[in-house]
Amino acid sequence: MTNPVLVNVLRGEHIESRHRGSIAVCDPRGRLVASWGDVDTPVYPRSAVKLLQALPLVESGAADHFNLDGAQLALACSSHSAEPAHTGLVSAWLERIGLGEQDLECGPHPPMNESAAAALIRDGLQPGRIHNNCSGKHTGMLTTCRFLDEPTHGYIEPEHPAQQRWIDALGEMAGVDLRRLPADRDGCGIPVIALPLRAIATAFARVAAPDDLAPARGAALERLATAIAGNPLMIAGSGRLCSELIALTGKRLLVKTGAQGVYTALLPEQGLGVALKIDDGSGEAAEVAILDLLNRLGALHDDELNALAARCRVPIVNTVGRVTGYREGVLP
Amino acid sequence: MTNPVLVNVLRGEHIESRHRGSIAVCDPRGRLVASWGDVDTPVYPRSAVKLLQALPLVESGAADHFNLDGAQLALACSSHSAEPAHTGLVSAWLERIGLGEQDLECGPHPPMNESAAAALIRDGLQPGRIHNNCSGKHTGMLTTCRFLDEPTHGYIEPEHPAQQRWIDALGEMAGVDLRRLPADRDGCGIPVIALPLRAIATAFARVAAPDDLAPARGAALERLATAIAGNPLMIAGSGRLCSELIALTGKRLLVKTGAQGVYTALLPEQGLGVALKIDDGSGEAAEVAILDLLNRLGALHDDELNALAARCRVPIVNTVGRVTGYREGVLP
Repeated sequence: MTNPVLVNVLRGEHIESRHRGSIAVCDPRGRLVASWGDVDTPVYPRSAVKLLQALPLVESGAADHFNLDGAQLALACSSHSAEPAHTGLVSAWLERIGLGEQDLECGPHPPMNESAAAALIRDGLQPGRIHNNCSGKHTGMLTTCRFLDEPTHGYIEPEHPAQQRWIDALGEMAGVDLRRLPADRDGCGIPVIALPLRAIATAFARVAAPDDLAPARGAALERLATAIAGNPLMIAGSGRLCSELIALTGKRLLVKTGAQGVYTALLPEQGLGVALKIDDGSGEAAEVAILDLLNRLGALHDDELNALAARCRVPIVNTVGRVTGYREGVLP
Repeated sequence: MTNPVLVNVLRGEHIESRHRGSIAVCDPRGRLVASWGDVDTPVYPRSAVKLLQALPLVESGAADHFNLDGAQLALACSSHSAEPAHTGLVSAWLERIGLGEQDLECGPHPPMNESAAAALIRDGLQPGRIHNNCSGKHTGMLTTCRFLDEPTHGYIEPEHPAQQRWIDALGEMAGVDLRRLPADRDGCGIPVIALPLRAIATAFARVAAPDDLAPARGAALERLATAIAGNPLMIAGSGRLCSELIALTGKRLLVKTGAQGVYTALLPEQGLGVALKIDDGSGEAAEVAILDLLNRLGALHDDELNALAARCRVPIVNTVGRVTGYREGVLP
């Protein structure tokens, strides 16, 4: 099955490049409300399921025990840009649970935020594990381990309870047996499991409309969603789509990016979940495509669309400052 | 027409992302010797035709007049990384023709070379026009203008003779009327014109086998090809595929990358030209695909393939240093 073109890249009036992809829009019962392309072949959701990976942090009681606030819970669900606000909070949080940066088992990479990356270079410093966009998620996992008195060393390994907990939660939410699906490691070292897009969308529909879930799970999801909506800069960072969109919509519409062209969304008003994958892995194309889809679903208000105009049809500016074209959604 | 998948991105044993594209392999008469996908829809060749854009520099007599050596001619055909060797040579060359960085009309962008970019940040400097990967090409164009006593101001505009000259040369080499084709501006500000891949491949086949060209043109192409082959680091930079491949093959096989997933190659031994475009614009995929194709064409010797093994099947390493998968050519 050939997935449809979701995004065109124009130079002048001519299409220079194009991005194909697939999208599933599901309700909480797993029914496909709308779809484009292949939604059955497993897709690695990467960071787009971090909200679900953070469930054990709340459900175990660890978040309460360590008095985590909304900013920390949002950070546990984040792919942050390693701005000082992010790394400062991760650092203080690690200290609160009696650990330090050396206990994080994610590897280092330069901050996604350009100014933060430049600041490290100016100061002659190498990026650390704390700058990894997943350091909040890892700190969340370590927090649960500390609360449950588990060894923290090796917490990224698939057999460690820290991983088994979220894998169980994700499987329950998505309604699939994850043990039968393709798996490997994510960029940050923890396991990654590929699920059909329709299963990922179903999981987020159940976050959007948690009525049929056990009350404790519904409450945990509600708490995480409220944390993200109240701390949009914590979920990503300055100038990032996830943060900008959530700052506009609040809890009415939550989105999350994942590496290699993945995006998920949950629409509480419509009780729908969305999962999107750009075939070629382009994150830039995924951003344009998710907005095009949300617009199609009627999920964006006029003022939000206006505020996001340059993200829906992204001007491509050359080095002399001339707009040479646009990246735009062309959802069939 | 849906182009075939040329490159897969594996995570574990599962395909995480895929890149489609098209390829034309032509002989000097414009015959399609081999092809994959659509080779008729116009494609912006971007920087992949810089060798042809440098033709007027040699043919006008400007290169002789200013005593340009092989390194400068290679730089005129380059997308350089703005390492000190590149910017130093551009700077000295501009001085030789009585101009300076302010006369370059390309805009600034950070050096493609990571160390060079970090050095600017450490020194508190902004990237300049000289760091633009096209500054060698622009200096070549300015050199011809100076030799012909033309105004240099506005040399990037489509109507300026500096642009008309290479457009004429490219049209002749490709055997197409460029005035009828989609056009806009390139990243560096000069015109860009979209040609069918088969026409781009034909142009490079004529560079590979210049027997039917006018002797002066054949000699100019020979001089540029020799310059590139003798100065592989000038055509791109440290760690870049174009430079590494040409350092291995010398004049036996020249390749050139272009933005948005374009690659061209010329194979003098076989008298063939190649043009390749990844649909989604991925440069990483284009690198893997061009090597897969060159291997298929029998253009790479065993020792070259060995030296390029990690470029043919590129390990994807996560932040904890684990190989999680590979990017690999899957030319049908």
